[in-house]
Amino acid sequence: MPAISERAQLVPPSPIRKLVPYANAAKARGKKVLHLNIGQPDLPTPPEFWEAIYSANLKVLDYTESGGIPAFREAYARFYTEIYQIPLEPRHFLTTTGGSEALLFAFLTLFSPGDEVIVIEPTYANYIGLGWATGISLRPVQSYIEEDFALPDPAVLEEAITPRTRGILLCNPSNPTGKLYSEEEVRKIADICSRHGLYLLSDESYRDYCYDGVRFFSALEVEGADDFVVVVDTLSKRYSVCGARVGALISRNTDIIEAALKWAQARLAPPTLGQIGGIALLSLPPSYYEYVRETFQKRRDTLLEGLRTIPGVTVATVQGAFYLMPQLPISDSDAFAQWLLERFDVEGTTVMVAPGTGFFSEPERGKSLIRIAYVLDIPYLEQAVEVLRAALNIYTREQVPIL
Amino acid sequence: MPAISERAQLVPPSPIRKLVPYANAAKARGKKVLHLNIGQPDLPTPPEFWEAIYSANLKVLDYTESGGIPAFREAYARFYTEIYQIPLEPRHFLTTTGGSEALLFAFLTLFSPGDEVIVIEPTYANYIGLGWATGISLRPVQSYIEEDFALPDPAVLEEAITPRTRGILLCNPSNPTGKLYSEEEVRKIADICSRHGLYLLSDESYRDYCYDGVRFFSALEVEGADDFVVVVDTLSKRYSVCGARVGALISRNTDIIEAALKWAQARLAPPTLGQIGGIALLSLPPSYYEYVRETFQKRRDTLLEGLRTIPGVTVATVQGAFYLMPQLPISDSDAFAQWLLERFDVEGTTVMVAPGTGFFSEPERGKSLIRIAYVLDIPYLEQAVEVLRAALNIYTREQVPIL
Repeated sequence: MPAISERAQLVPPSPIRKLVPYANAAKARGKKVLHLNIGQPDLPTPPEFWEAIYSANLKVLDYTESGGIPAFREAYARFYTEIYQIPLEPRHFLTTTGGSEALLFAFLTLFSPGDEVIVIEPTYANYIGLGWATGISLRPVQSYIEEDFALPDPAVLEEAITPRTRGILLCNPSNPTGKLYSEEEVRKIADICSRHGLYLLSDESYRDYCYDGVRFFSALEVEGADDFVVVVDTLSKRYSVCGARVGALISRNTDIIEAALKWAQARLAPPTLGQIGGIALLSLPPSYYEYVRETFQKRRDTLLEGLRTIPGVTVATVQGAFYLMPQLPISDSDAFAQWLLERFDVEGTTVMVAPGTGFFSEPERGKSLIRIAYVLDIPYLEQAVEVLRAALNIYTREQVPIL
Repeated sequence: MPAISERAQLVPPSPIRKLVPYANAAKARGKKVLHLNIGQPDLPTPPEFWEAIYSANLKVLDYTESGGIPAFREAYARFYTEIYQIPLEPRHFLTTTGGSEALLFAFLTLFSPGDEVIVIEPTYANYIGLGWATGISLRPVQSYIEEDFALPDPAVLEEAITPRTRGILLCNPSNPTGKLYSEEEVRKIADICSRHGLYLLSDESYRDYCYDGVRFFSALEVEGADDFVVVVDTLSKRYSVCGARVGALISRNTDIIEAALKWAQARLAPPTLGQIGGIALLSLPPSYYEYVRETFQKRRDTLLEGLRTIPGVTVATVQGAFYLMPQLPISDSDAFAQWLLERFDVEGTTVMVAPGTGFFSEPERGKSLIRIAYVLDIPYLEQAVEVLRAALNIYTREQVPIL
């Protein structure tokens, strides 16, 4: 019997999804599980999405063009130009099956097997899987909770550059930390890329989630960087349509878009219904984004304040995405997350979180961290804080003999 | 400015889709284009698909599990067991974003960069792109129109095996030739794989399209081959839902399914709506498949007979899929396909075909071949034959001085 490929053996399972079987078992036993583990917004999908699909009244659900429905790309360009005030044209967009596929196409197009890409850790777990799939080495540079996950010093970033380095991959705002990089920080990274001939691959999937009145500064806004800036975008989080699987690879360097189109052709087309509904979503008024931002800012405030009242818990002050990555008084976040599902509840309710280990290339760095997605309404977040408080109270005492 | 990766420079554009701009230009000039270039069935999507989506009445379009909605995998297993009489369980299925992603996951899971996989040419063009994406070398073995694209002699297949060979990739029935491999031929390939420790990766996307009463024999039906047989399936062609983007990677070797799940986690989830509608499709009665088969058999007969009346055209007698790959009296199928769109019409109508060059690793082998997808109703196919007849009559005369 032939063996599984080495890359398939070595690629780690998703830290966010690997606990699903334990959650299913807990629910089967009648436990209520508050899902704080996955970046799936709970807000209703705007009805315009469904209306567009119903009114299309398709007879045959056929392929679209590999690069996406022209009207979808036009709506995308108009959206960026009008809502984000970033002038773009349809030819700057390649429609993808979610942000995940935009990342895949970017890795395949910008980097060669054996190349290195710098990432700031803690980093989005799936970048690691993507590196394995495409033969790219991720070279981590650490950011620290004590510094609110600020951009590492440019000198430290530059130290990580080797002759094989081809790009810096930034997740802004950051999944998993919630760190929103400032205009100054984005410019610093672009400057490094410019001086060293690197691509700046900016994953801006969470850009609509910025709090405290801070304006998001996109890598696409850096002057003189059109050749080397590539942005990953998705409708998933912006419109609560994670299951639609539509996003885009964006660059003013149309050589990149045209080269990436060849990978897009090899997989035929992105989902048709997501694009049809997506055209309507991309035409929503500015008030929609305001409503989303306000809703999540209140949640962040609730969670941040609540977590800070739990003894031994440290939380960074962050202003973006819908994640927090607190440090807990624990030494094995995987064991703790599993224990929450298997052995703990407060009146029948427990919480599901993502262990911090999966967000580092050296998992040990995440052993006292967890990622919390605040994708539930405030009363549930308050309940989650109380469940965590009670859990840590018991867990830290129970674990003492083992430490 | 950094360079595009070598693989992105070398991967060829899709031969099926690269002519799209010429087709769009022709249509913009008011020409009617009969689309025989792409494997997009024209039959209406069964209404059960739409009803399932409407009646689900989702409030939030959220992610599904990375391996697919459990009910979808259950419906898939039931479908294989009852309709195909191949007993399978949900754990033998990984839900994918179309057959394309099943192929990607198979390549990533079964093969390592630098490995070789044997394919029978002419072969599905996108296998070539997939090889570039995953670092796998496709090693072609030729089949010939004069032999109705029969399986190459096992001795010839075995000659192609090197120390780096890890599998044989079979497209059955074949895209682009329409060749339906017999039970005997499938067993011969499985035997070679068994003796040489290779995977048999069988792309059975067109298995519902078998004519002349021949029963399809799946690689999953070979006894004793569970460890090394992996099947790629899709709902796209079976139910006329190419735009839904749902399919599956299938194997009784659950180590493969579990390893592939890690790639699936890295891209989060397949499209939700395609799965919801897909559950209904997989529960359609046997009469549906009978209707599809009869419809396409009549079309094949019409096209086969029509093409054979055109002077200088050779067509193999084939019994599967919805493709024919005739040999024409031309020396440059790319130029001919482009000429059809740019410079030819019969009373305002022309045809779009896929040049044969894209279905070979050495494009020269396909210079007199074209692929025709018979995805239009019989009157259009009859019209297409007449357009081709008139086109070849003029083209071959016009081209004489150049030859």
